[in-house]
Amino acid sequence: MTFTALATPTLLLEKEKLMANIDRMQASANRLGVRLRPHSKTMKSARAAEALMASGARGITVSTLKEAGYFLEHGIKDITYAVGMVPTKLPEAASLMAAGADLKIMTDSVEVAGVIAAEANQSGIGYKLLVEIDCGDNRGGLQPESEELLQIVKLIENSTARFQGILTHAGHSYGVNNISEIEKIAAQERDAVVRAATRLREAGYAVDTVSLGSTPTALYAKDLSGITELRAGVYTVFDMDQQARGVCQTDEIAMSVLSSVIGHNKAAGKILLDAGGLALSKDRSADKFRPEVGYGQICNEGGEVMPGLYVTSVSQEHGHVRIRDVNDYDLFPVGSRLRILPIHACMTAAAYDHFNIIENGVLAGKWDRVNGW
Amino acid sequence: MTFTALATPTLLLEKEKLMANIDRMQASANRLGVRLRPHSKTMKSARAAEALMASGARGITVSTLKEAGYFLEHGIKDITYAVGMVPTKLPEAASLMAAGADLKIMTDSVEVAGVIAAEANQSGIGYKLLVEIDCGDNRGGLQPESEELLQIVKLIENSTARFQGILTHAGHSYGVNNISEIEKIAAQERDAVVRAATRLREAGYAVDTVSLGSTPTALYAKDLSGITELRAGVYTVFDMDQQARGVCQTDEIAMSVLSSVIGHNKAAGKILLDAGGLALSKDRSADKFRPEVGYGQICNEGGEVMPGLYVTSVSQEHGHVRIRDVNDYDLFPVGSRLRILPIHACMTAAAYDHFNIIENGVLAGKWDRVNGW
Repeated sequence: MTFTALATPTLLLEKEKLMANIDRMQASANRLGVRLRPHSKTMKSARAAEALMASGARGITVSTLKEAGYFLEHGIKDITYAVGMVPTKLPEAASLMAAGADLKIMTDSVEVAGVIAAEANQSGIGYKLLVEIDCGDNRGGLQPESEELLQIVKLIENSTARFQGILTHAGHSYGVNNISEIEKIAAQERDAVVRAATRLREAGYAVDTVSLGSTPTALYAKDLSGITELRAGVYTVFDMDQQARGVCQTDEIAMSVLSSVIGHNKAAGKILLDAGGLALSKDRSADKFRPEVGYGQICNEGGEVMPGLYVTSVSQEHGHVRIRDVNDYDLFPVGSRLRILPIHACMTAAAYDHFNIIENGVLAGKWDRVNGW
Repeated sequence: MTFTALATPTLLLEKEKLMANIDRMQASANRLGVRLRPHSKTMKSARAAEALMASGARGITVSTLKEAGYFLEHGIKDITYAVGMVPTKLPEAASLMAAGADLKIMTDSVEVAGVIAAEANQSGIGYKLLVEIDCGDNRGGLQPESEELLQIVKLIENSTARFQGILTHAGHSYGVNNISEIEKIAAQERDAVVRAATRLREAGYAVDTVSLGSTPTALYAKDLSGITELRAGVYTVFDMDQQARGVCQTDEIAMSVLSSVIGHNKAAGKILLDAGGLALSKDRSADKFRPEVGYGQICNEGGEVMPGLYVTSVSQEHGHVRIRDVNDYDLFPVGSRLRILPIHACMTAAAYDHFNIIENGVLAGKWDRVNGW
């Protein structure tokens, strides 16, 4: 398998692996009896979203309002923007709703909820609000027992805006590397948001959406009673970070960076690539469990994993590969090409405006992506 | 100073600081008696290149052929592509030359030089070749005493291609944090490339270009006898990595990311921003000397540094700021804005397609940038 038509560095996507990963997660959602609302933060691609919808997904999650606009242009209306709303972004949200988006926005701030309620009353716009719950990740979100949770919902319900439900994300599921720990965190994630829903219902509020998810917990949760929807994103392509945590196998990773060998520094024992920090990202998420993987796992151009060969360091446009022995120079002469399995697919993909699709072992067109804000 | 017209996260560039940095480096080149060929890898902006040329720079350095095409479209013809050439990229280089670029390409590989010589003979294209020398950075380049250096130049001189000269980069100058160490590395950088030039001249070859540079060595070299040109890039805007090494002061950093506060996680003692790994990059170059800086130094919206307040961790779209004390919540309420001085300006800027220019304290338009390959 060679890709001489492509200039390097560039992004490859193996369609068969993507489809298998999509089906694996949809089967998990079906098994758990919840709706799947994939997070588009990894793929940011309308064609990928089409494949997700065809497999059974309903609606999408986005990480930027620009993504929301892109997907709306491609006919996807049911969109949850799962990053905290701020008042200055409300006009953009209103524009998306006016253009037909069924947009859900999110906050964990009483002050922001107050502004949303006031803006809704003034404009008549029925903003749909989710409240973020912290299930132990310590990123965004209110504690399930917090007083502010009730304050926010009261503010919204007394306005033209609508309270849609609650949402949490167990980002700390990325901090462990065995399935039994992931199962525990999945239960914690569920308990936090179910507890918050129960408190709100006891206070007399309807809670339509009870949403959670992360790739590890979504794949390994045992029971999601009380949950209405699952969100996850990186599972579509996986990466070496997920592999290091035991969440996927190396051969399930569907995305790679095609790179050229631009030099052999024999004095330093290195092969140099034209894929560096910009082409791969400087993410080192796999360090906790597999520090040797560095900035990516090397495969040959056909995609076969080269055990023990990694991008050991990067500068802006250079990837440095410490050779295993001098035979590696013959294996990868200057001008030859290889593939790199990324550490964190979401970060790596963001450097590219399209995927080169590989299907049945040959190039099969491009899928565009949206980046930026 | 507020920027309510701008959606966050977005990139700010303070023009007065940029111009002062440009003048500082031009003065250093003038003092050392060498031509300055700025590296456009940081700014990737035609408007910035115009400012550099106006200050005295002659020609530019690029890190991708896409950059070369962009600058050529903007009227800059004298371009050095300072990343190792591979045979598959020769057609793109030939196209640029056909479109009027005075393009210099580079290799350290005898095999690649052989292909360039053969392609030149076949096509009649006078590719101009620089040979890369390793001055101790252990990235690309041949040792000054290497046999391959003479082999490459002989191959090229016996072809339709032309040997332009030699080039090195003391990337290891980023590994120290005091001026006397930088001075030593600057001498090492000079000695390596002057030694290579001497060997080539002794063998009867003309060496037009003897090029070196990195921001630290270009600013602090004491003597560049034998050198014809200086290359550097990040000095245009500087960053916290350069600040951590003592190469610049914090108030010389001309680039920052404008970000909104999207939440307060009081249980976790955090302010959350809408600038995360994608908006800042995951570069941690400052860790060696100032690990506390994390992913960036926080300033208020007006640009005033907030001592002790840093982006302590990031996820894809979230920056986490550990508060100093609870007063920080009042200082930065949800919905307010602040600026982040980046760790590594080249990596951060790559997430954006333009700079928002600040001049005389107010927004003064946009400068576009080119990204990708």
